[in-house]
Amino acid sequence: MAERKKLCYGMVGGGLGAFIGAVHRKAIALEETADLVAGCFSSKDGKNQETGSFYGIEEDRLYKDYREMAQKEAKREDGIDFVSIVTPNATHYQVAKAFLEAGIHVACEKPLCFTVEQAEELQALAAEKNLFFAVTYTYTGYAMVKLARELVEKGEIGEIVNVNAEYLQDWLIDEIGGGSQTTTKLSVWRTDPEKSGISNCVGDIGTHIEDTVSYITGLHPKKVAAALDNYGMELDLNANMLVEYENGVHGVYSCSQVCAGHLNGLTVRIFGTKGAIEWVQEDPNYLKVTKKGQPVQIYHRGTGYITGRAAELNHIPSGHPEGLTYAFANIYHAFMSAVLKQINGQEITQEDLDFPKVEDGVMGVRFIHAAVKSSKNGSVWTEV
Amino acid sequence: MAERKKLCYGMVGGGLGAFIGAVHRKAIALEETADLVAGCFSSKDGKNQETGSFYGIEEDRLYKDYREMAQKEAKREDGIDFVSIVTPNATHYQVAKAFLEAGIHVACEKPLCFTVEQAEELQALAAEKNLFFAVTYTYTGYAMVKLARELVEKGEIGEIVNVNAEYLQDWLIDEIGGGSQTTTKLSVWRTDPEKSGISNCVGDIGTHIEDTVSYITGLHPKKVAAALDNYGMELDLNANMLVEYENGVHGVYSCSQVCAGHLNGLTVRIFGTKGAIEWVQEDPNYLKVTKKGQPVQIYHRGTGYITGRAAELNHIPSGHPEGLTYAFANIYHAFMSAVLKQINGQEITQEDLDFPKVEDGVMGVRFIHAAVKSSKNGSVWTEV
Amino acid sequence: MAERKKLCYGMVGGGLGAFIGAVHRKAIALEETADLVAGCFSSKDGKNQETGSFYGIEEDRLYKDYREMAQKEAKREDGIDFVSIVTPNATHYQVAKAFLEAGIHVACEKPLCFTVEQAEELQALAAEKNLFFAVTYTYTGYAMVKLARELVEKGEIGEIVNVNAEYLQDWLIDEIGGGSQTTTKLSVWRTDPEKSGISNCVGDIGTHIEDTVSYITGLHPKKVAAALDNYGMELDLNANMLVEYENGVHGVYSCSQVCAGHLNGLTVRIFGTKGAIEWVQEDPNYLKVTKKGQPVQIYHRGTGYITGRAAELNHIPSGHPEGLTYAFANIYHAFMSAVLKQINGQEITQEDLDFPKVEDGVMGVRFIHAAVKSSKNGSVWTEV
Amino acid sequence: MAERKKLCYGMVGGGLGAFIGAVHRKAIALEETADLVAGCFSSKDGKNQETGSFYGIEEDRLYKDYREMAQKEAKREDGIDFVSIVTPNATHYQVAKAFLEAGIHVACEKPLCFTVEQAEELQALAAEKNLFFAVTYTYTGYAMVKLARELVEKGEIGEIVNVNAEYLQDWLIDEIGGGSQTTTKLSVWRTDPEKSGISNCVGDIGTHIEDTVSYITGLHPKKVAAALDNYGMELDLNANMLVEYENGVHGVYSCSQVCAGHLNGLTVRIFGTKGAIEWVQEDPNYLKVTKKGQPVQIYHRGTGYITGRAAELNHIPSGHPEGLTYAFANIYHAFMSAVLKQINGQEITQEDLDFPKVEDGVMGVRFIHAAVKSSKNGSVWTEV
Repeated sequence: MAERKKLCYGMVGGGLGAFIGAVHRKAIALEETADLVAGCFSSKDGKNQETGSFYGIEEDRLYKDYREMAQKEAKREDGIDFVSIVTPNATHYQVAKAFLEAGIHVACEKPLCFTVEQAEELQALAAEKNLFFAVTYTYTGYAMVKLARELVEKGEIGEIVNVNAEYLQDWLIDEIGGGSQTTTKLSVWRTDPEKSGISNCVGDIGTHIEDTVSYITGLHPKKVAAALDNYGMELDLNANMLVEYENGVHGVYSCSQVCAGHLNGLTVRIFGTKGAIEWVQEDPNYLKVTKKGQPVQIYHRGTGYITGRAAELNHIPSGHPEGLTYAFANIYHAFMSAVLKQINGQEITQEDLDFPKVEDGVMGVRFIHAAVKSSKNGSVWTEV
Repeated sequence: MAERKKLCYGMVGGGLGAFIGAVHRKAIALEETADLVAGCFSSKDGKNQETGSFYGIEEDRLYKDYREMAQKEAKREDGIDFVSIVTPNATHYQVAKAFLEAGIHVACEKPLCFTVEQAEELQALAAEKNLFFAVTYTYTGYAMVKLARELVEKGEIGEIVNVNAEYLQDWLIDEIGGGSQTTTKLSVWRTDPEKSGISNCVGDIGTHIEDTVSYITGLHPKKVAAALDNYGMELDLNANMLVEYENGVHGVYSCSQVCAGHLNGLTVRIFGTKGAIEWVQEDPNYLKVTKKGQPVQIYHRGTGYITGRAAELNHIPSGHPEGLTYAFANIYHAFMSAVLKQINGQEITQEDLDFPKVEDGVMGVRFIHAAVKSSKNGSVWTEV
Repeated sequence: MAERKKLCYGMVGGGLGAFIGAVHRKAIALEETADLVAGCFSSKDGKNQETGSFYGIEEDRLYKDYREMAQKEAKREDGIDFVSIVTPNATHYQVAKAFLEAGIHVACEKPLCFTVEQAEELQALAAEKNLFFAVTYTYTGYAMVKLARELVEKGEIGEIVNVNAEYLQDWLIDEIGGGSQTTTKLSVWRTDPEKSGISNCVGDIGTHIEDTVSYITGLHPKKVAAALDNYGMELDLNANMLVEYENGVHGVYSCSQVCAGHLNGLTVRIFGTKGAIEWVQEDPNYLKVTKKGQPVQIYHRGTGYITGRAAELNHIPSGHPEGLTYAFANIYHAFMSAVLKQINGQEITQEDLDFPKVEDGVMGVRFIHAAVKSSKNGSVWTEV
Repeated sequence: MAERKKLCYGMVGGGLGAFIGAVHRKAIALEETADLVAGCFSSKDGKNQETGSFYGIEEDRLYKDYREMAQKEAKREDGIDFVSIVTPNATHYQVAKAFLEAGIHVACEKPLCFTVEQAEELQALAAEKNLFFAVTYTYTGYAMVKLARELVEKGEIGEIVNVNAEYLQDWLIDEIGGGSQTTTKLSVWRTDPEKSGISNCVGDIGTHIEDTVSYITGLHPKKVAAALDNYGMELDLNANMLVEYENGVHGVYSCSQVCAGHLNGLTVRIFGTKGAIEWVQEDPNYLKVTKKGQPVQIYHRGTGYITGRAAELNHIPSGHPEGLTYAFANIYHAFMSAVLKQINGQEITQEDLDFPKVEDGVMGVRFIHAAVKSSKNGSVWTEV
């Protein structure tokens, strides 16, 4: 069989006008190596049709039901190679399960699902079926996050002794005191346990802190002491947390949706015995490195002194910024490379596996549950 | 005839591996409203074939010669709606002319061409044929540049009294003194008059200063007093220029390819009687506004207080950066909207025309020639 | 009696070459309203003589013993109006007590003393004697910290809902693992419980966080959950802490002496329902204000839109930075104004009392003890 | 004769409430090595008396006339060692001349005087009398400017190929169009040729650019092509200038008093074949160094990696900012050291001479005249 050069994929969710679905499609388009050929874009018939038509999806590959889509695509000779799941959180589990059972690789939005049990079930199923399962924790796709990881791995900052990371937003600030009258659809959704699970703020953005720190350092919190603030709402809008890693080192994680003037302020700082690094999502093309006894260094993406993975994933010349969409594209780049190589029977490298996986999704769910539990119990240290 | 929802386009230049062609294709892909269906990607047969094959171009629409492409596509009922010209500078003129003559809309890389005469000829031809002609001065596509323009138009900074703009790079620093041994293909190309025309630095990046300032302010230099530095090379690597606008206001433009540690440092500052604005290409999601007697203000792209065109062209939520590719996409957004509406017989708005046009390309060529002439004549004031 | 225009003062500690003593003298010199006339600068005779001679202190006012100095100066008609105590921490209590008992106003370096009992004793003594007692928590002297306080008081940021403050240094990073061979005199001193008390890092810089936040917001921690890290040393070098204020709001305080590349990184961020403020000690002439739904605002010290106390304490035109010495000077400005007015029998205003006082010193000692206790007890919430 | 440890000095100008006089006194006070013992502070009797009294000046050393002061102090055995001249520009020449003729060292505010002839006369007189003459171009006193000079001298940035420096303010923005009704005393003074000489903006702040660049690089402009803007006023409020140095390198200097939101924005950028440096007066404790092919480096004042003169003149620990007053103090530090060593018959080092001198003042006056002349002649290149 001829070597395949391109993949074809399907999407569940992501009707025209939906935000995150478009981001996934555009990220894949930037890679230029996969075509959208099937979809179950919306539970609303009209929206589903309109979306399929816009993207030139053939009639028989436009599905009303994701289960039907999984089964039929699995049976086609030219069936989709992978599915992108961009539905609301509450359905991730069931949709992902359906495609895994049908033997189709999965890329799924985060958080993976609501309970640790579901998460572990999906992990086991992917392993059993020998399928790739990406969970799109976006920020680890940025080139400079990859550089941060490389610097830590190479020992450039020495042994890690302290961590300080935060993710600050303000878009739910008017919910303080019980919810504003100008409440948007999205804010209602996020603060509703039916739709968001047991946590809003930690679940939505706190998990990004956990994932990004662990991607860079290899460290997962062993336990957490958390103070969540609901300010009169059912779910948390703000959280300050002490964490302790397996090696006994401590750190602080803060996430908030009520910090006025903050948009997507994910900042990660890792402190080691020889140096420290700081990365700010809102200015993602830079990495600040402060080595003991040396001038502060600012690395710029794309320059000649950038090496390794961050150099491989350079798309635009240095000094011309890459934004969020390229971070997404980099995740799909690795995931799709792994899928394509498996199909072609080629050897899969570490680089091909450089995407957030189902086990990272499992860890995210564990982290959410530990933080909520700790806060309910007076911020006592709680195992993750 | 049914309303068209999408366009189809062809490309001249941009074989696989070529930088700027990929940027154009990806920018168009982000817009999701045009399909690549024809091309003359490379003068090398193998590269042309390989590229056509990768993008699924049908055999009969993969051309060895751009003239043939222009003529045949013009005759097809399903012929391309527009062409993207991403060849080296020296061929822009002839390629653009061929497609205009065939009645096909044109998007062309900058600089438009080598001489003022050629530029004016293209302008006249586009007008005669009633065709849209975009010249991709990228930076005016950024949302915050559009906000800058809007603030100036609304009088937020009062009457303009001074301008200071610069574009600093360092990639040719090793050419100082006559060219380094590590000279790259690109540096050879840029510093060769056959390929670059009468100016290297002013032609390549000085024109971006001219274009971006004029987009924001509506002011073009009436005359320029320039000091170009060649440092032993045939063409300029550095230029400092005084400019005077039609209203008598002065400004400074500096462009350089020898400023160590500077990448694509385009910074535009406009000073008015009531306030000033500052935009930095390397951090394009911000706009600094300093009003007389008030705290400094930093506007962030995508926030609720952003209005007008900058709000319309928002793709990703605030705090998640948009990079260069979206600036390109915004230019294609307007250009393709204008083309589509003309095809559909719909009314074309100001917003549809919000892209850099052939007349901006003409002005760029005029500016280059005036700067070079001034420098040769002892930096005397020279009409643009 | 004629109105006094100037004060005279004495100093305990601060021999030539000692760092903090010089800072106090220079801060007072910037105010130009007090002359140094007496001292007990060093326990070493030669150093004491040399210092006294350099400052032109008369022989009979150069003392070998601070108790003698307190008693003799108290008896002189032209005796000192106040004393500056700039000795090591371990002696603050006894020296301050001697001067208070002698009826002399006191300005003392922080931390005030080692135990809560000592601190409260000094507070009571100052009250009983009707004496002013400044504890030089430097950072509240900065003009922009005063502006921050004013903005909070005026309700500009609404109700406070979250706090995030840190003080990061790296000067003890080589102590990790048990102390380096390049240990300096100062690092030995700081990490020795005999000289530093029960805490090193929280005691030295954590207290500055507590004091600066409470100055700006009026909020003191009601309880603290702290994780202190000793990294093999006897005392803490790093601490991450959750705090809860009296109004139930939570915050995070982090202080460290092992964060590579950080010098005196005191950053205070206060988040309210309407806006947030951020102040960074290393760039003290700015205050960042982020109001909900508005562009970020950067206030610059000394400009026309600065009002209130921050405007009163402006020394140098805006755009010309004021540094640490002026923060010290501002503290002495208020303290000396209060002392002078008391002497002249004039009314003392709120502005005259705008200096950190013995009760702030007491709170600092309480905070240190609570943090250490919490950390020893598994980071449980501990009353301050 | 015993070695002197301290100096005594007098002041002309600087009555209580005057701005620049206080800066000089406080800068000298920070050095702790000179006492104010004589003065002619104000032409107004009451103000002169009040000032003398506040500083404890003895009656017979408080003068109504500076000529009398120069002569009488010269005759006293305990006469002043140097004089600080802090009067308005128009009187610098005559006052400085009187003290030089009396054999007294001089520190004088800038600009030195109005005409090149006067300036050269003062220079000759100081040389003839073997007297030190400091002209307080403040900014060269900053530690990080000294580091910049050292890096250039050591060849860290290679051969200089381009210069870009500016000094932007906005305090005269309301003078545009002919002067506002809210005109202050200072703005009237600055824009009056009788008091300011032939230039306002270039004279006041343009000369700081010239001086700071030449201090760092050793390069003086050989010629200048200037466009000055008066906006309806008698003197210039804005100037953009091309400069050419003796080695043929070009640069740009821009100074303005009408750039909204800019306070004392002196920024100096020096570009060399190996690297570039950038220093910003408003954030003076940093120096940005961008070396070819390396991450951007930010040097922080006072750290262990700072060497040479910048390290010697460190007053406060790194991370605690030093402001303008210390820049002044550093200038006085060298000047007073030179004076003291001459008195003590000690060898004078290069470090003692590290202050701006009368020849720098002469160059400043030359520069002003060349810029004004160029602008009047259509911005033609004009010899400095």
